[in-house]
Amino acid sequence: MLLSDRVLMGPGPSNPYPEVAAAFTRPLLGHLDPEFLAVLDETCDRLRSVFRTDNALTLPVSGTGSAGMEAAFVNVVGPGDVVVVGVNGLFGERMCEVAGRLGAEVVRVDAPWGEPLDPEALVSAHASPAVIALVHAETSTGVRNDVEAVAPHKGDALLLVDMVTSLGGIPVDVDGWGVDIAYSGTQKCLGVPPGLSPVTVGARARGRFRERPTSWYLDLGLIARYVEGAGGRTYHHTAPVPMVFALHAGLGALLQEGLDAAWARHAACGQALQSGLQNMGLQLVAPASHRLPQLTTVWVPDGLAGEGEAGVRTALLRRFGIEIGAGVGPMAGRAWRIGCMGHTARPRNVELVLGALGEVLGR
Amino acid sequence: MLLSDRVLMGPGPSNPYPEVAAAFTRPLLGHLDPEFLAVLDETCDRLRSVFRTDNALTLPVSGTGSAGMEAAFVNVVGPGDVVVVGVNGLFGERMCEVAGRLGAEVVRVDAPWGEPLDPEALVSAHASPAVIALVHAETSTGVRNDVEAVAPHKGDALLLVDMVTSLGGIPVDVDGWGVDIAYSGTQKCLGVPPGLSPVTVGARARGRFRERPTSWYLDLGLIARYVEGAGGRTYHHTAPVPMVFALHAGLGALLQEGLDAAWARHAACGQALQSGLQNMGLQLVAPASHRLPQLTTVWVPDGLAGEGEAGVRTALLRRFGIEIGAGVGPMAGRAWRIGCMGHTARPRNVELVLGALGEVLGR
Repeated sequence: MLLSDRVLMGPGPSNPYPEVAAAFTRPLLGHLDPEFLAVLDETCDRLRSVFRTDNALTLPVSGTGSAGMEAAFVNVVGPGDVVVVGVNGLFGERMCEVAGRLGAEVVRVDAPWGEPLDPEALVSAHASPAVIALVHAETSTGVRNDVEAVAPHKGDALLLVDMVTSLGGIPVDVDGWGVDIAYSGTQKCLGVPPGLSPVTVGARARGRFRERPTSWYLDLGLIARYVEGAGGRTYHHTAPVPMVFALHAGLGALLQEGLDAAWARHAACGQALQSGLQNMGLQLVAPASHRLPQLTTVWVPDGLAGEGEAGVRTALLRRFGIEIGAGVGPMAGRAWRIGCMGHTARPRNVELVLGALGEVLGR
Repeated sequence: MLLSDRVLMGPGPSNPYPEVAAAFTRPLLGHLDPEFLAVLDETCDRLRSVFRTDNALTLPVSGTGSAGMEAAFVNVVGPGDVVVVGVNGLFGERMCEVAGRLGAEVVRVDAPWGEPLDPEALVSAHASPAVIALVHAETSTGVRNDVEAVAPHKGDALLLVDMVTSLGGIPVDVDGWGVDIAYSGTQKCLGVPPGLSPVTVGARARGRFRERPTSWYLDLGLIARYVEGAGGRTYHHTAPVPMVFALHAGLGALLQEGLDAAWARHAACGQALQSGLQNMGLQLVAPASHRLPQLTTVWVPDGLAGEGEAGVRTALLRRFGIEIGAGVGPMAGRAWRIGCMGHTARPRNVELVLGALGEVLGR
């Protein structure tokens, strides 16, 4: 069978780092093998560096980013708990759904899709919430929310942040900001395929862990007994060994480059892409002040909206092997999402997608 | 860094098929790429063949086997539901814990670890349970439980079966037996690394799906809208693409060999291993009538129990690169678990482990 290779410029996955592809060829080890446990420990250390945290409980959860979201909520939220959720896109909506299923009293703080949340509204939405939750980088809209403006005013609440699309792509500072729980995904700015969700939990949040959360699989208190391994490793579930090898390698590539350099690379690529799109006469969705460099939303030009926009994506895929993403929610059929994340965030890919899109659009 | 390659003869993971290692080198595709969706569809078809079912809802859940267990329960079990669970090992215990956390009224039917469950006791434990659950192949003890003896007497209950260690290694017949929900893991007799959990759900069980299970991530009703794709694919979470490639390849290798041939290979290897251990003067844990070929539990010889048994495992790992498993629960320090699963189930590995163990034990 012929295999296609793609330039992955949708909202994720991005193309993995070459070091990650190499890591998948490593012979399999058992999940209790000393050599695997050394890789796992180093992976957790590398995650601490990338999250900028000293949190002991920092680990890859054995599922995709949405499993990380569920793990974040299920360990600290139970029936009747007040959870304030900022909603300005799909993943804020998802937080409401996940918290709601756990019986939480969800207090929504909405902003229009494509605009940032109002930090003031988030912290004043309820007198004493158990949790304030928001998405740092809304993958559905390309908007950055101001986590650092919310954090100082969280009060007694736990601050729970979705960093799926931010981690590795824009500045993140879990300890500096005072984030209590954060989760991410491997397939965005970490340059690793989908399959794991990095999670970090601070001492305050850990002190509020529920004794027996409804999920056994995502019970971080139990998982910690395997991952932290003080006094021996207690088996919980079989670690997804090849994906841990892959994450270990991707984080290694990222940290060797340096976080500052990686953020600068994402910023430069995003800026070049966004300027190029505007020079083509296209309009960007997100306001400049809160525009993500790693994920750009752009309005589909007049006359193409609806079925026509899908034809453009299909042409990019068939003629050039480039994947870009469709709009979702109120932007379905009306916007494209163009990712420039992880190893994909290279000037050559910006050149390529601008040239190809210009050709398909006749601009 | 030097990399070790192991002969993986513990309770899982087993060594992947060569076709699986090759699949990990395939360039990454997006989770909505038509070429990926074709691989996913074919993976689900192959899972139907291996489970021997026509169930439309047959898919790899994006987590390890324990995520499959949780998915099986969380979609059909809620507060107050009576769940009868057969318990003769660690994974029966885990079922009780998972169901209990969902608020079920758990009715345990115990048998001693190392002995099979009594099918009669299971079906007569409660007048009208919502679910009867048992483990087909207890990875903790090497015992097979008689699913086919329980199935005809399940009445109105759903029959929920853990096939983590049985699928691909011993006969499984989901439709023929009348199993309503089954789940497995990739890292045992399917010869694929850990990371996914094949799950199959029949129409009866699907008709009893809870409308809004506490887990969003494992909500099979929502996931079906992506996997089944009638009328388009609705995004749920980003599929773990490389692991799906790997599973696709492993199932391909297994089905090319043929299920009957693979079962016969596991049976022959297990028989040879078990005879060899007995010829060495060692005692097997499981009774011959219910002894799994793919996972053999053997008592640690007198004088070695306790710390000494760990030394034997360490010697096998260091001198020969062979991993075998420790005992768990009441067998911790008192038994070994030797797997012969998937691609590892080869006469050469049986020869090897018998020779190496004999040398280390001086027998």
